[in-house]
Order: sequence, then structure tokens, then C-alpha cells
Amino acid sequence: MLTHKDRLTALRTQISADKLDGFVVPLTDEHMSEYVGSYAQRLAWLTGFEGSAGSAVILADEAAIFTDGRYTLQVRDQVDADLYSFQNVPKVRVADWLADHVKSGQRIGYDPWLHTRLWVKEATRKLAENGAELVAVTTNPIDRIWADRPTPSRAKIEVHGDHLAGRSSADKRADIAKWLQSKKADTVVIAALDSIAWLFNIRGRDVARTPVALAFAMVRADGSAALFTDLAKVDDDVRDHLGDDVEIADRTAFTAALEALGATGKTVIVDPSSAVVAIFQAIESAGDAAGANIIEARDPCALAKAIKNPVEIQGTRDAHHRDGVALTRFLHWFDGEAPKGGLTELGVAEKLESFRRESNLLRDLSFDTISGSGPNAAIPHYRVSEASSRHIGNDSIFLVDSGGQYPDGTTDVTRTLVVGTPTPEMRDRFTRVLKGHIALATAIFPTGTRGGQLDALARQFLWAAGVDYAHGTGHGVGSYLNVHEGPQRIATAGDDEPLAAGMILSDEPGYYKSGEYGIRIENLVLVVPVDVAGAEQDMLGFESLTLAPIDLDLVDDSLLTDAERQWLNAYHARVRDALSEALPAEVKPWLEAATRPI
Amino acid sequence: MLTHKDRLTALRTQISADKLDGFVVPLTDEHMSEYVGSYAQRLAWLTGFEGSAGSAVILADEAAIFTDGRYTLQVRDQVDADLYSFQNVPKVRVADWLADHVKSGQRIGYDPWLHTRLWVKEATRKLAENGAELVAVTTNPIDRIWADRPTPSRAKIEVHGDHLAGRSSADKRADIAKWLQSKKADTVVIAALDSIAWLFNIRGRDVARTPVALAFAMVRADGSAALFTDLAKVDDDVRDHLGDDVEIADRTAFTAALEALGATGKTVIVDPSSAVVAIFQAIESAGDAAGANIIEARDPCALAKAIKNPVEIQGTRDAHHRDGVALTRFLHWFDGEAPKGGLTELGVAEKLESFRRESNLLRDLSFDTISGSGPNAAIPHYRVSEASSRHIGNDSIFLVDSGGQYPDGTTDVTRTLVVGTPTPEMRDRFTRVLKGHIALATAIFPTGTRGGQLDALARQFLWAAGVDYAHGTGHGVGSYLNVHEGPQRIATAGDDEPLAAGMILSDEPGYYKSGEYGIRIENLVLVVPVDVAGAEQDMLGFESLTLAPIDLDLVDDSLLTDAERQWLNAYHARVRDALSEALPAEVKPWLEAATRPI
Repeated sequence: MLTHKDRLTALRTQISADKLDGFVVPLTDEHMSEYVGSYAQRLAWLTGFEGSAGSAVILADEAAIFTDGRYTLQVRDQVDADLYSFQNVPKVRVADWLADHVKSGQRIGYDPWLHTRLWVKEATRKLAENGAELVAVTTNPIDRIWADRPTPSRAKIEVHGDHLAGRSSADKRADIAKWLQSKKADTVVIAALDSIAWLFNIRGRDVARTPVALAFAMVRADGSAALFTDLAKVDDDVRDHLGDDVEIADRTAFTAALEALGATGKTVIVDPSSAVVAIFQAIESAGDAAGANIIEARDPCALAKAIKNPVEIQGTRDAHHRDGVALTRFLHWFDGEAPKGGLTELGVAEKLESFRRESNLLRDLSFDTISGSGPNAAIPHYRVSEASSRHIGNDSIFLVDSGGQYPDGTTDVTRTLVVGTPTPEMRDRFTRVLKGHIALATAIFPTGTRGGQLDALARQFLWAAGVDYAHGTGHGVGSYLNVHEGPQRIATAGDDEPLAAGMILSDEPGYYKSGEYGIRIENLVLVVPVDVAGAEQDMLGFESLTLAPIDLDLVDDSLLTDAERQWLNAYHARVRDALSEALPAEVKPWLEAATRPI
Repeated sequence: MLTHKDRLTALRTQISADKLDGFVVPLTDEHMSEYVGSYAQRLAWLTGFEGSAGSAVILADEAAIFTDGRYTLQVRDQVDADLYSFQNVPKVRVADWLADHVKSGQRIGYDPWLHTRLWVKEATRKLAENGAELVAVTTNPIDRIWADRPTPSRAKIEVHGDHLAGRSSADKRADIAKWLQSKKADTVVIAALDSIAWLFNIRGRDVARTPVALAFAMVRADGSAALFTDLAKVDDDVRDHLGDDVEIADRTAFTAALEALGATGKTVIVDPSSAVVAIFQAIESAGDAAGANIIEARDPCALAKAIKNPVEIQGTRDAHHRDGVALTRFLHWFDGEAPKGGLTELGVAEKLESFRRESNLLRDLSFDTISGSGPNAAIPHYRVSEASSRHIGNDSIFLVDSGGQYPDGTTDVTRTLVVGTPTPEMRDRFTRVLKGHIALATAIFPTGTRGGQLDALARQFLWAAGVDYAHGTGHGVGSYLNVHEGPQRIATAGDDEPLAAGMILSDEPGYYKSGEYGIRIENLVLVVPVDVAGAEQDMLGFESLTLAPIDLDLVDDSLLTDAERQWLNAYHARVRDALSEALPAEVKPWLEAATRPI
């Protein structure tokens, strides 16, 4: 097998053969996905970096890898410092670093299927200021040298029936057709894989942890559509399901279809955040023909997908019940085993997965389980491996963040557990995180409120102690789709989408003491209308979807208000009532005790 | 005197003589000010509308006046519906309405000294789409027909000494010079009147309620500057104060100076939010000469001015002490007089002003006093007049929002008082407003937090009851300058400036029951560093500057937490300790009772 040094050398040779002086290697796919298929994991293959965000720049004499604060430690563990310099974004941006390191007259390559138009514009301008040129390649040079590169998955597309989706694809397309008419546009190009899955009520197995199928799509103002995908993935069930109004074409026909939009002077809507620059270039390549009029606008599936319909809402409740049974069985098991010693992070993660797999409805985990003990729990986005897996010691904190993909819903839950006796500081911090979790879970707010307006409710008790957490408080969650879904979120930035009834978000404040321990309490919550007596306007609130006990051994009761104690007791009573019947006999008394009123 | 109908007729005749088909009349001045001198109150003269934000469009056959939700009622009271249609912004935007109502070939005039470049660009484009043209006028047609139009004030500029300003103008200019050098720019144009006052440590009396002088300014990369103002306003004291590095030129020379920047190819920074389009046009008018390079950037005084230095901070504390004595004497007087009946909103406002005027340091009020009883208190931005002034009845709520301009600081305070017995609902709402006020006043938050992140802390208890208030929670306040000052604020929008130690803001949640009563509790607060034991990062909090009792008769003690009760008692103890000595003997026992611990 080639070493990372060999791979870098081979890439430099290829770049030179391609008459380039450098090349940019991002971590994404043709759909600007967060999680990508193995065929697209070029950055990991080249450098060894396995985080979920980053990129590299390869020049003749030097190379750099760019990651954000979450991966400062991990990138140094996984990537050879003799081959790459480590750069921190957003402090050092790829385009700025490039501009500082190129020489006049140089040509830097990029793959137009892996970058947004905005990035290409900015990098082109910055290189031009230094006399250099950004050049689109037709074949990614990594693909030429990566001999055993996996082919893109050809897994069959699956029908996601109306009994799970709650609305027919034709109905969804009719809404988009109306929207296109209102925009005086002919066609919208859909590039985001979860949007395509939602739009056509299909699911796939092409990307780990995310049930999407590799495809592109177009919807037209008459409600008809085209789906571009590897034809080997499409069987008769899918053809029947999609019906006559959906033309199914091979993925290889996509570029020509884009060019045809341009050549026939169509008005085309493209979302610049999910459509790569190659899509724009293809539409605009019609030369001196009519030329398309491109309108940049948000993917029309994004908000519609985020607002779950009643069928999806019932599905997510069912999925959370099922997931809560598995998680509670795991917590009972952990409580008995951990004090004996001998558990490892990896073993615990596998055990939790085995409880989930006892449901034959589990299709996959919704992300790689974060299973962290002691100092490992203090690393945001920690991913346990054979090398890192710690024994779970006594008097330590263990954090487990996990979730499942079920046909009726996606789950994502974090519990923090203590083995033995916590320190007073651990209990203080855990209780402040809990108070923040409760403040958000019980918030009532007017229609039109953005998640960013509520973010401080979850942080206020940590702030009062002079501490904080360096991640968002909540992300959207799909319906048997992406575990991270927009456009809503609960975070400090202020440009987010107003919350609307039917949206699902996480509520996950935390606290991380570097080198010592980490705490996070995460439930998924559903935005619901709230009927307040005497209300003068429509109010919204949250319903907690996740069902699993919160470790009372970590709660410092003296820090809770009466209202907070009532919430915790009522939540625990709900968990008990909901799950008891489905639990094995030996787990029931444990759950009784774990959910005792305080 | 001409009626509003006569004025509209005269304007139409003038517009026609100017070969225009319409004209846009905004409510602002050449500095995009919030409050404008009487010479610039063209909208009020033309239409009768006296609110603080609005504009009108006059066409040959129709006319419209555009106001926002705050003035929905007022505009209908003050403006003749036979002459103008009422349009609500932002639902109907001026440029959109114009585009819908012009005919192809028409020419619509605007005064380039009264509009931003952004507005002109947008309106030009929208008119062009309908075949019409937006045309800059050289003389505002209203100025030709407004026979008794006041001339701009020629009040003397006053020196704001370093003992009040805390930093010399030379020092401030040196910082701006450094900033210009870092931007590779030659000159920055300063158009905002409060920026000019801050930059040169001068004050003026040209605009009611705001101690600014009408002027424009430029600062150059060598720290030298030019001040353009009516030379009659400048005496030797001011010349001495400004020194040799500040060239003083007549206001009439400003346009030529802008043109010279363009003609000599300078790189000029202009803030598009405070510089009118005429400034851009003058710089760009150099024809085929070198042409200036204009960089759009925020006025460099804006943030520097918002962060008060130690001298300004001590000054604002002194001003608030002085103002608190006057307000407490007023509250004592009101408490004795109101139950007797016979008080009116207008009489009360005058009485409060008289208490403030007993300090010979009061230069002006900082805004027109809002003095509202019963339903009038429920009108946001209510301004009492002879016509509207109500008697202050028994068992009613009275709201008074007022402030003073002192050489060492600007105050702004709202107290809500009950005469007789409040209803349970009034006490519930008042207590929820108070809880929100306290939650914000006691917030601790990390450096870098924006006001928008804290806004919900002040609203949460009202939201829980299904109600809210339709205004921001806090605005910045100047140091003997504008009572509304940016760039920081505490509001629902998410694009605001991070809070920094030394900023002054208001904390003013409220509740308004239309047709019945209004409640607001407003203190000014100073952003201060907070030392939290064990803190892992730098934290900030607020110090309450305003000193005046909060009406305990409106507090429902059962709704307060222990911590809230402690805050209220500690605040009242501070008010008592700070003010008692300076109060007349008969007021002291009243203050004792008004600030009793609960």
C-alpha cells in the first residue's frame, strides 16, 4: 500500500503532467455534502485526515492542510507534519494562503464539481491579484493516481412510501411548480442529496449514516421532473413509484441537460450553497445561443423538508420510543457493568449499537457514535478508534452521543454518565448544562422567532460561572434523512431561519474541561404551537422527543429552581410511562430508580 | 397661512415647472440624521406628519405617505386622507410603489442630499424597469415654495473640553489616521453629526434635543482634518481648540473639496449609511481626471464613540446621579399630587422638566418627554400635545419616558406609576416586565456576545404569558450626544455589534395593551468586565446607571424569585444611598418608603 508520502509524490507528478503548479483538495462531493461516499474521500486518502471538514492545497514545494478549531488536535495526530503544514480556518483561509504562496504565472487546478461558485470567484480574484490563474480540471488528478479508489455506490434506490413521507412526491412537486411560476422561472436544479430524497420520496444507501442516493434533479414549472442517477440503481418499483412525470436519466446525461437549459434560454433557479460551480458553468456554456438566465435562490426543498408533516411527526415519535427502549437498556447495562471496570469506549459503543440493532427497523446509525471517557469526552467531535479507546475508569464521566436511522425517523441523543462518585465541580457543571437544557426545552416564544434568539437561554447558567461551550446549541434533524439538516438552527449567529411548528431540532448544551472531562445533555425537540391562556399572538414551544433518563447522580439539586425540578420529574415520569412496558423485566426496576422524583 | 392642500398644490406646480412628473420627500437631513433641524422638516411642513420616520411621494394625480407600524395611527390623525394615501413600510416600499405608479417616460425627482446611494440605485433600477427615470434636482422644489422656511441654525459651536471628552481630538484623529493607512486610503469623509461632534470634541445647538453642530468633515492619513461648517458658527475659542491641524472651511466649500478628492485620484473612505448620494456623486464627478477610488466602510468614529473612556464613564455616572435626584423629586411630587386628580400629561411633563431645569447643568432634554396615561401609554412613541393630553385618572397607569442632556452625560429613563389601585393583570404584566429587566441587567456573558443574543432574556417572562413588545430592548446612548446611538443594540435582529466594556445601552422591556395601558421599565446600563471566580474566559455584564425607584405598588411579589427580589432590594438600597443626601428633607422619608425592601 502506498504511504501518504508516496501518494503526495504521485499527486505532484500527476499535477505536473497536467501542466499545473498546484491543486486544491476539498473534503466534499458533487453535492456539497457534509458526509460523503467513500469514492469521494480524496482528502482522507491523500493525507490521512478523517475529520468531517477540511481541505488541502498541494504545490510543487509545499503542501498545507486546512482545518477548523474542532480538529486542531486530530489533524496533528493523523497527518504527517513533514508533508503538510497545519493551517487553521477561518484564521487562514485557503484562497488567502494560496494567494500568498503562488508565484506569478502559475496555474492552480481545482475540480469544478467540488467547489461553490463563490469560492471559485474569490480564489480566482485573489490569485489574479498575484498574477496566477485558477484552472478547472476535467479529471481530478487524484482520481488518476488513486488505483483502488472505490466506485460510487450503485446501491438500489428505495421507495420511501407515502405512509412514511406523509405527502406524495407529485404534491411536493406541485408546490415547487407554483413557486417556479411565481418566480417566472422554468426550472430549478436540485443538487442536495437530502433534498432529492425528500422531493421524490426515495432513500438510498450510497453514503454511510445518511440514507440518500447519489443523484441530481430538475423540477419544471409544469410539475414534471428529471432524476439523474446511475441507472443501475433504479428498479421497476422505483420507476412505478416515480411515475410518468419523472423522467429518469443516467447521471452522465446531467451535464448535457444543464447545457440544454442554457442553449434554449431557460430561466433556471440554482442554489449556490448546494450547487457546485460546474453546474453554473454547464448552464452558462451555451456560447452565443440564447443563454440561460440563472436566478440564485434557496433550494425550495430546504424549508419544506424541515417542517415535518403529521405523518413524519408521528413517525419520529415512534422512532424515538424505539430508540429510547434501546438506549435505556444500554444505560441499565452500563450502570451494572461499568463499576466492575474493564469497559472500553469502543466496546461500549458496540454494545449500544447492538441494543439498537435488536430492532429490525434500524437501517443504520445516524452518525458514528461519540463514546468518550474522561479527557476524551472533552474533545468536541471525538471519534473513538482502536488507538484512542480508553478504559472507562472509576469516578469518571462518560459521554455517549449516538443515534439511529429508522424508516420513520432519525434520532440523535447524548447522555453523560458518572461511574462512581463525581466531584462537586462535575455536579455543578452538569447541573448548569441541565438548567440550560431545561430553559430551552421550556421556552415559549412568538412565531417568527429565530433559534439564534433562544441560544443564550441554554448558555446563561454556564455564563454565570464564567464558562461556555464552543459549539451550537441545536441543529435541525431530518425525517429518516440527514442528522444535520437546515435551515433552522439554534446558535450564536443571527442569520438563521425563524422556527416553525413541525421543525425538529436538537437541544444540546455542554461543558468541556480540556484534559479532564466533558458533559453534554441532548434531546431532540419538536417545535409545536403552544396554547397560552390570554395570549395576544401565536406562540410556539418545544416538545421533547427523546426518551431516556438523565443521570441524577450528576444533578446538584440545590442549584435547581422548583420549576426546573418539576420539569425533570415530569420528563422522567414521561420516560418511565412511555418505555416501561417495552422493557425487559430486569430493566424496569432500574428505570424506576433512575427516574425517581427528586 | 397655507393649508396642507395649498402646499401640495404649490409643490405640484413647482414640480411641473421643474419639468418633473413627481418628487420624493424623505424625513431626514444631509447627514441621514434621526432628529433634524427645523429647516429640514420638509415632510412635516408639506403633510403635517410629525413622526420621526417617514416619506412621501408626490405625483401629478396622486400622493402617498409612507410610515412604519409605530405611526399607523398618528399619520391618520395628522395627515389629510383626501390628499395622501397611507402606505405601510416595509410592506410597501417607496421604490416599489413608485415603480407601480409611474408611467413610461416620466421623470421623478429626488434631492441627492437627502438619500443614500443604495436607495437611489434601487429606485433608479425599479423606475427604469418601467421606462421612467429618477432625476437628481439641484434645488429642492419644496425650498422654493416654503416661503418662511427656517434657515439652518447658526448657533455657535461649543468646545467639549478634554475634561469631559476624556481624549483629545488629536489623539482620536491619530487613531483614524492609522486606520486609514491600514486601509491604504488617503481620506475618510465623515457625515454623521454625532461622529463629527465626537471626533473634534465639539458640541452644538443646531438640532433640538441633540447637541450637535451642522457640519461635514474629512480626516486624512496624516491625522490632519477639515471641518466644513457655516463660518458664522466658529469663534476664536473653537479655532484655538481645533488647532492648526484642522482646517476650518465654509460649508459651501464642501462639494468642491469632494470634487478635488476625485480630481486628484485619492482613495476615499465613505460610510454609505450616513453619507448621502450627493457626496458619492461629487467625489465621482471628476470627469476624465484620475477619479477617486471610493471604499465603502463604516464610519471609523462609530465604534470608538460607542466605547466610553473612563472620563466619559465617570461623567455619565455623575449625570445619572443628578438626573436621579430630579426624577425622584418628581416621583415624590407625583405621588402626592396625582391622587388629588387634576394632573394632565402635559402638565406632568412640564413639571418633570422643571425639576431637571433646577440643575444649571441641564442643557436640554435628550428627547421630547413621553408622558402617557391610560390608553395613551399604550401608544409606542406617543408624544403628548395640547390636543392629546389626558387627565391622569385614578386607578390608572401613567408612563413617563424622559431624559436630559448634561455636559457630562446623556440620560434616558422610563418609570411606570400607578395612581390608586392596579388590576391584578397590570401587576402581572408589570412584574413580568420587571423580571425581564432584571434578567438582562444581571446577565453575564462572554466577550464577543451581541446584544441580539441577550434580547430574549428580557422577553422570556412576557412570552410565557403569550405577550411581547414590538420594539427593541435596548439602544446605545451617547456621551452628551445622541440618545439613540449605534452600532450596538439589544434587539431581535441578528446583525448587531458585539458588546464591549464601556458601551452604554438602555434596558427597556415593556408591555402595551392597546386602548388600555402601557408599561415600560427603562434604566441605562454600562457594559463592564465581570470577575467570575473560576472563569475560563473574559466575561462581561451590566452596571445599572439610572438611579430612581421602581413603583413597588405594581410588583406582584409572588412572581419574583429570591434572586430577583434580592436584585430589586439591592438596587433600591443603592438608589436610596446614592440620592438621599442630595434630596430635600421632605423627599427623604418618601424615598425610604419607596425603596423599602420587599
